Amino acid sequence: MRRQRFICKSCESNSDGYGGGMYCERCYMEADKIKVQLMGENEELKDKIEFLKLCSPSPTTSSTTSLAGSFSDVVLIALDSEPPLPVQAHKAVLVNRSPVFRAMLENEEMEESRSGTVKIADVRYDALQAFVNYLYTAETCLNQNLACDLLILAEKYQVQHLKHYCQKFLVSKLNWDNALTTYTFACCHNAEDIMDAALEVITDNMDKLTTQLEYVNLVEKDPQLVIKIYETYLSKQVNTAACRNPSVRRDSSSGSGIGDGGGWSDGC
Amino acid sequence: MRRQRFICKSCESNSDGYGGGMYCERCYMEADKIKVQLMGENEELKDKIEFLKLCSPSPTTSSTTSLAGSFSDVVLIALDSEPPLPVQAHKAVLVNRSPVFRAMLENEEMEESRSGTVKIADVRYDALQAFVNYLYTAETCLNQNLACDLLILAEKYQVQHLKHYCQKFLVSKLNWDNALTTYTFACCHNAEDIMDAALEVITDNMDKLTTQLEYVNLVEKDPQLVIKIYETYLSKQVNTAACRNPSVRRDSSSGSGIGDGGGWSDGC
Repeated sequence: MRRQRFICKSCESNSDGYGGGMYCERCYMEADKIKVQLMGENEELKDKIEFLKLCSPSPTTSSTTSLAGSFSDVVLIALDSEPPLPVQAHKAVLVNRSPVFRAMLENEEMEESRSGTVKIADVRYDALQAFVNYLYTAETCLNQNLACDLLILAEKYQVQHLKHYCQKFLVSKLNWDNALTTYTFACCHNAEDIMDAALEVITDNMDKLTTQLEYVNLVEKDPQLVIKIYETYLSKQVNTAACRNPSVRRDSSSGSGIGDGGGWSDGC
Repeated sequence: MRRQRFICKSCESNSDGYGGGMYCERCYMEADKIKVQLMGENEELKDKIEFLKLCSPSPTTSSTTSLAGSFSDVVLIALDSEPPLPVQAHKAVLVNRSPVFRAMLENEEMEESRSGTVKIADVRYDALQAFVNYLYTAETCLNQNLACDLLILAEKYQVQHLKHYCQKFLVSKLNWDNALTTYTFACCHNAEDIMDAALEVITDNMDKLTTQLEYVNLVEKDPQLVIKIYETYLSKQVNTAACRNPSVRRDSSSGSGIGDGGGWSDGC
């Protein structure tokens, strides 16, 4: 029998009726309808975000900002800048965004609450401005350095939304060249998403690990982090072996099957 | 030749290869991929909204609210409640949401700015609370009455996001029974979306118009609004005639084709 050919209604390409995956109009329309609905929802959500954003009183933003800033009732100071520079803010915003600011500013026995001044060490003025601006707008333009600075502040003040945002950015920038440094940074600041992603990159490149200067330094400075790398690698090898041979137990104490995983960058 | 039947991969229904609309896998997957992307984006936008929402200091919301309220620096008073009741707020939030509050609170010559008190007449306390809460959260649970009250406040304080939200709700509740009342209300408060939708309902039911008590009252109280109804109806009829006969000019001064539109609820 002659093979019947059909033309796709959407892209007008020919498709083989027997072999090619064809979808009926109803299913296609359903996927398309949901897509259109979601696009509409998306626009509504974006409008809501625009409505909910507040002008940060930081002087770097628009001209309307300084006016909103006139109602500011708290100042954050980057102690490390010379001279120490203030970033204006509103207590109501800070306590809504951060449980740490809440505990600090709602407790009248705290110095910060009484003075309306929060002194912050070990932070660049630019990063502090970007941090406060994020609390008002949920927006910032990241680069590698700023993402690290903001992640530290987000961790310190428990601003989970910002921490997640910085982690996502830093994971997207991971490569072999920065994996060990990023891993060390992530471990110091309790950034589990980055930690996991960095361990993935490192354990995929174990043949190059010990030649890295960062590795030699890490062995010296924080051997626990090095042990974690080897443990993760071992666990991956055991799982690889178990995937290849389901009869092998999936835990590292079994002592079998690891040899079968072979090589330095085996994937399951 | 025998007609070939195919089974849709998604729903497993049979579909006729000749007549039924079939879509190739690539097109279906594309629609589906965009759908999945949009769902992910939507989740991110919803997280952002959760982050950006502020606790309103109104006592009706959660227990954390009263704490945030301790930093309140302005009070809105519903003058019509007995006794007049205050709703706590923050100037920084009000000026960010409403150009009217901005003009009022940033100008030190205004009584409201000096006293930190904004007195509002002709509003129920509940509605004022819901209004302030919306400014903090972009959320409210509407019913017909509340939607009208909030639309009036949104119009007065130029809170476009809330006005749009109320209009959408009231349009969704339109029917013949409430069309004339809703139309009158919309005209009084410059709510164009509702006005257009109500005129659509009214001009689709012209045979019943003059029997309505609201109509008789409106002729008496605001004849301009009645004229607007007839003008809209006339324009619809001209357009209907033009659709049926493209040679008829699409403006009501042509004086031709209207008779062809015939009947009371003709659609184009």
